[in-house]
Amino acid sequence: MIVQREIQLPRFSRGFHLITNFIEEELDEIPAEGILFVHIKHTSAGLCLNENADPSVRVDFEGIFNRLVPEDEPYYTHTFEGSDDMPAHVKSVLCGNSVNIPISNHRLNLGTWQGIYLCEFRNNGGGRKLVLTVMS
Amino acid sequence: MIVQREIQLPRFSRGFHLITNFIEEELDEIPAEGILFVHIKHTSAGLCLNENADPSVRVDFEGIFNRLVPEDEPYYTHTFEGSDDMPAHVKSVLCGNSVNIPISNHRLNLGTWQGIYLCEFRNNGGGRKLVLTVMS
Amino acid sequence: MIVQREIQLPRFSRGFHLITNFIEEELDEIPAEGILFVHIKHTSAGLCLNENADPSVRVDFEGIFNRLVPEDEPYYTHTFEGSDDMPAHVKSVLCGNSVNIPISNHRLNLGTWQGIYLCEFRNNGGGRKLVLTVMS
Repeated sequence: MIVQREIQLPRFSRGFHLITNFIEEELDEIPAEGILFVHIKHTSAGLCLNENADPSVRVDFEGIFNRLVPEDEPYYTHTFEGSDDMPAHVKSVLCGNSVNIPISNHRLNLGTWQGIYLCEFRNNGGGRKLVLTVMS
Repeated sequence: MIVQREIQLPRFSRGFHLITNFIEEELDEIPAEGILFVHIKHTSAGLCLNENADPSVRVDFEGIFNRLVPEDEPYYTHTFEGSDDMPAHVKSVLCGNSVNIPISNHRLNLGTWQGIYLCEFRNNGGGRKLVLTVMS
Repeated sequence: MIVQREIQLPRFSRGFHLITNFIEEELDEIPAEGILFVHIKHTSAGLCLNENADPSVRVDFEGIFNRLVPEDEPYYTHTFEGSDDMPAHVKSVLCGNSVNIPISNHRLNLGTWQGIYLCEFRNNGGGRKLVLTVMS
């Protein structure tokens, strides 16, 4: 059985943001067993799973990703959309555009410390569109 | 319902290549709702989703990945398959070996700017094998 | 049809480890066609697919990941769980928390050289929990 819906997140600032609650609120009925697929329909933002407790983890994610893929490198050729744009494309590939979460006993079977992150890599990314698909 | 097939891509040069059309041509009938899983059966190439329009994005992907995982580092121990080999293994993990794409209304529900990339990290990677699985 | 189970791996040392056999032993009956989803319930370890033969590949993975995300950077703010902790969070996102493997002809349809890696990024990560879900 498949239940699918498309949602739009509110606008988030550049950085890593916990969105587990946004996702869970959109899932009316969670089956006993299955998989939730969350897909982001963008090329300059990503999705991943990581620590849901201490916000300093999300601060350091932003710092580390900015150093992994710096802005304004002289060899960049794709520059006309702003200095945050080309790094955002690469960062979104490093994170990935989707997360798949097992569903067990009518709930998302995440680890104790796992939450869903929106990884917003643009300075002004706007409200990002997600497709949620539950297969059971 | 599951429909699965294995295909071989033509040989691509080292770099990032749009293969959305190759994939879509292999899907005879796309169900109303579901997920397309694309898996690459190799350890030195990857798959990801990113911008389908300006080819300069794909040029910079190659430049940035080459700097993220440089060739010929003195501490490398796995060197007998050529200087592009060990970096290719790591790059393929950074990209990932699969993409999962929601299917809605009988089509791949990609964002406006999203296309499927083959990430070819070897100088002579040959024709890469993919497994396409549609679950609906 | 969905078959799901949760397992705990033995304790592995920091580094990249082949766990294909552990996974296959837990799958009692593999259907003719489908997908195996493997999810790790942790935020400082990851899963990926890569070369199953020469162990020097896994040695270099550890060296390369340690240089991609170094320990003890002065700008880190999340430091109270040890110098391996914050890098471990980021490395797990770079690898990913899950792998999806096509099932064909009653077996995992991996490439000749592909195996499943546990990527243990903590010095003392303990026995990691996985959720295996087979959809067919």
